[in-house]
Amino acid sequence: MGEAQVSLRHLYRVFTKPEHQDSKLAQIEQHLSDNILDFLSQHVVTKKTSLEEIEQDFSDSRVPESPEFVSSHAESLLDKLVAHSVNTYSPTFIGHMTSALPYFHLPLSKLMVGLNQNLVKIETSKAFTPLERQVLGMMHNLVYDEDEAFYQRYLHSALHSLGAFCSGGTIANITALWVARNKALGPQKGFAGVSREGLAAAYRHYGINNLGLMCSKRGHYSLSKAVDALGIGRQQLLALPCPTQTLKPEDALKAGKAYQEAGNQLLAIVGVGGTTETGHVDPLDELADVANELGCWFHVDAAWGGATLFSKQYRHKLKGIERADSVTIDAHKQMYVPMGAGMALFKDPENANVVRHHAQYILREGSKDLGATTLEGSRNGMAMMVYSSLHIFGRRGYELLIDQSIEKAKTFADMINRHPDFELITTPTLSLLTYRVCPKAIQARLKVAADDEINALNQTLDRLVVNVQKLQREAGKSFVSRTRLEIPGYPDRSVTVFRVVLANPLTTHHDLAAILAEQHMIASGTSDWQDLEDGKYSLTA
Amino acid sequence: MGEAQVSLRHLYRVFTKPEHQDSKLAQIEQHLSDNILDFLSQHVVTKKTSLEEIEQDFSDSRVPESPEFVSSHAESLLDKLVAHSVNTYSPTFIGHMTSALPYFHLPLSKLMVGLNQNLVKIETSKAFTPLERQVLGMMHNLVYDEDEAFYQRYLHSALHSLGAFCSGGTIANITALWVARNKALGPQKGFAGVSREGLAAAYRHYGINNLGLMCSKRGHYSLSKAVDALGIGRQQLLALPCPTQTLKPEDALKAGKAYQEAGNQLLAIVGVGGTTETGHVDPLDELADVANELGCWFHVDAAWGGATLFSKQYRHKLKGIERADSVTIDAHKQMYVPMGAGMALFKDPENANVVRHHAQYILREGSKDLGATTLEGSRNGMAMMVYSSLHIFGRRGYELLIDQSIEKAKTFADMINRHPDFELITTPTLSLLTYRVCPKAIQARLKVAADDEINALNQTLDRLVVNVQKLQREAGKSFVSRTRLEIPGYPDRSVTVFRVVLANPLTTHHDLAAILAEQHMIASGTSDWQDLEDGKYSLTA
Repeated sequence: MGEAQVSLRHLYRVFTKPEHQDSKLAQIEQHLSDNILDFLSQHVVTKKTSLEEIEQDFSDSRVPESPEFVSSHAESLLDKLVAHSVNTYSPTFIGHMTSALPYFHLPLSKLMVGLNQNLVKIETSKAFTPLERQVLGMMHNLVYDEDEAFYQRYLHSALHSLGAFCSGGTIANITALWVARNKALGPQKGFAGVSREGLAAAYRHYGINNLGLMCSKRGHYSLSKAVDALGIGRQQLLALPCPTQTLKPEDALKAGKAYQEAGNQLLAIVGVGGTTETGHVDPLDELADVANELGCWFHVDAAWGGATLFSKQYRHKLKGIERADSVTIDAHKQMYVPMGAGMALFKDPENANVVRHHAQYILREGSKDLGATTLEGSRNGMAMMVYSSLHIFGRRGYELLIDQSIEKAKTFADMINRHPDFELITTPTLSLLTYRVCPKAIQARLKVAADDEINALNQTLDRLVVNVQKLQREAGKSFVSRTRLEIPGYPDRSVTVFRVVLANPLTTHHDLAAILAEQHMIASGTSDWQDLEDGKYSLTA
Repeated sequence: MGEAQVSLRHLYRVFTKPEHQDSKLAQIEQHLSDNILDFLSQHVVTKKTSLEEIEQDFSDSRVPESPEFVSSHAESLLDKLVAHSVNTYSPTFIGHMTSALPYFHLPLSKLMVGLNQNLVKIETSKAFTPLERQVLGMMHNLVYDEDEAFYQRYLHSALHSLGAFCSGGTIANITALWVARNKALGPQKGFAGVSREGLAAAYRHYGINNLGLMCSKRGHYSLSKAVDALGIGRQQLLALPCPTQTLKPEDALKAGKAYQEAGNQLLAIVGVGGTTETGHVDPLDELADVANELGCWFHVDAAWGGATLFSKQYRHKLKGIERADSVTIDAHKQMYVPMGAGMALFKDPENANVVRHHAQYILREGSKDLGATTLEGSRNGMAMMVYSSLHIFGRRGYELLIDQSIEKAKTFADMINRHPDFELITTPTLSLLTYRVCPKAIQARLKVAADDEINALNQTLDRLVVNVQKLQREAGKSFVSRTRLEIPGYPDRSVTVFRVVLANPLTTHHDLAAILAEQHMIASGTSDWQDLEDGKYSLTA
């Protein structure tokens, strides 16, 4: 590998002279611009390489001593990194929430990096600050639909905040619950508030044993991180069982009352607007009633499903979200923005003030610096990507994208239902669904068998699903993910299922049929399948 | 503005067909590639536009109903956003920590967005996971310099973590202190640990009144956010006075002991490796001794100064950093990586396990998914930018960049010292310095005047500095920032100073001389200057 000259003159060039247009890096860039699908299919290697093999290329812990030429480095990036990355644009990789992005984000990302703004304060972001506030206002409007006067008053107010732009949904959830916590344990006579005095003092002042957070077992893992980081404790995450994948309002009310009667304070109920595992939406409107009755905060984690609000046909699925005190939406999910665009929205523009912070040289009192109420400090101009997407797609464009995803999921559910050897486990509410491979005869047997036999069959089927998922992934043509779910039919245990996210607009019905066919072919070649067909599954496996 | 066609066919095009090479967006991209300085000087308007005026362009809170053509949108981005953004590449904008970036980050950012990996798990990032671990290992190595066997053992271990990649220094500081907190209040017989049982239960179990965090008054505002979010309370941030800009070890020891004797537990001492306001470095080695004596965690916030370790000549300024339990370094500061690249490093690779989290469908036990120990969930592939920079610059390249920054700061300090009407307030330790404009006669007067007169003079000078900074910013040619500092000469109050960060490699000595000349010209035209010269400053202003 070439060793570049170490001189200030050389370094100055790196800052002032672009790469030659025939250079390797310029070629990569051109290929990305001309045809990203072709670039990815040419450079991302599909054959199985073990993680251990890949790690060999990233095993030196020493900082390289000497500079390397950009072009030889670009060559090595292609070989070592791009070759073994994941082709998230592939229409047959439907196992995760990242997908193809619209082309315009490629040049825009260059513009964002070129401008290199820092949104923590106006001094280093200027127009990006009102832009980000407008983006948060538009998303607030989408969720809460307040009147024109409301937005005129609050959109650019230095004393208010309609939301916080974050690196992702986890920080958005933590931010929302941080605000909820500080609001619930705020200042009173003789107590300066949890923000200043801390959690233990707050518990003493308010006379509570514990603060709790309620959600269903399908609540996102970030909630567990949140209760840990915020000092509430993971044991106080009341994750209620949900065999039907959603939080039952009557269960929530009952558990909430019992919790309060034991001398605890319920901080918040979190309703999920599209669970990560199955895409189910909690009954938000009823949960808002429950939160109201219990006197707690209501947060909706709509990181995935929030964009459904763009669709006139499907926005009713999130009915009640407008009653939430705070809402999380990730633009890098169904809004097709590059990774790094989470948002926490606040119904009441006063609420973020409970975490407001000022300093001498930055975030001065009365300034509009965004960093005064965000958990993060320095942040990039990712809000521009959301702004541009909102304009280039418009509500109607997003509506089409959302509608086609949901309809594609319905179509895939139909394919699975019609196929004798597959079993649909959860019906798509949004664009996610789960299913498993299961020979027709076994499906029939499961309906009549005794518990012991059901358990034995399910254990074999679990193994089969794990195996098929793994072999399909390794074959490299397509990818679905897997998870374990409690489901109504098998109350005593969970089953392993394929999990599919139909977000990529490039995925066709033909792709879906091919994925199913491949899974069937793989499954029927396994010994588990043979055993199931032969009735040789063990009752005590 | 054109209304784009709303059809699935049109939307599909946005995902599959690049913009035509003559389109506006392609032109913007080409201009950025060819000559970013020219692009910025052509499009970023330097004349003063008030924030209120800019807000007019971002005042509509409604989501646009119909799609817009990419090209007409690009046109409007230029007019409304780029025109009123901050030219962070400008060599005369030396008031903040963002600067020009090397050219190669432009195409790399496109590659990063094009690959759209999600580093929360291997499934959606594959080679990016070992790459990020290697980057963290290299930075760990730079700080801690452990032996080869250490890195062989831990770099890719699923059960260990050398650090956490974060969106920025604030999240890195919070992550480090989260780990410190969970480690300090860990599980014992009869107590499941603060992570599970929460902070109030932990205080009861450990029999402590409060948990405290110690730093100097120059500690970053993120520490205040951290103690709030982590439930410790802002009152427990023991920010000690530091008229000499650094935390005195004897003060820290004394305050720490007093705190402990009052029934409190000191969680951590935070040493700063380059304060945001003056670039001073706390006496890290001595503070490590103090932390040792007090039995608490030692964290070093080297978000700004960490990169000084690349320089053989100056790395001694951070002596003692290798004794820190955790260290924060931002690659988007002196490593010239785009915004969004913070890192928290852990001396002991076991420690991050106190925040480890598993879930069914992700971050499974035994997996190497990075999301298991980071505060954030979904994250982009920014580690690639750090990886590439480490290779393209190499240690020796970074050394040159660091050395020239520090030397430039020294040169500027000399210029200020030589100028009769300027007063250097803090000498540069790294590449930051502070100073103020002050007529020669007044400098002499300050040395002999009584306290009342000193106060009156300083109040007038404060007003002068604020005014000059504002007028210079509005003139649009150059930008320095300002802050308020306690300084040894004026024990009863703070003074307002110009703050300069000499990070931009494009800044020349000529630029610095011009900035000083402009400030002098502006200052001498003000009425405050005239009053000072005429001895008309009020003693009771």
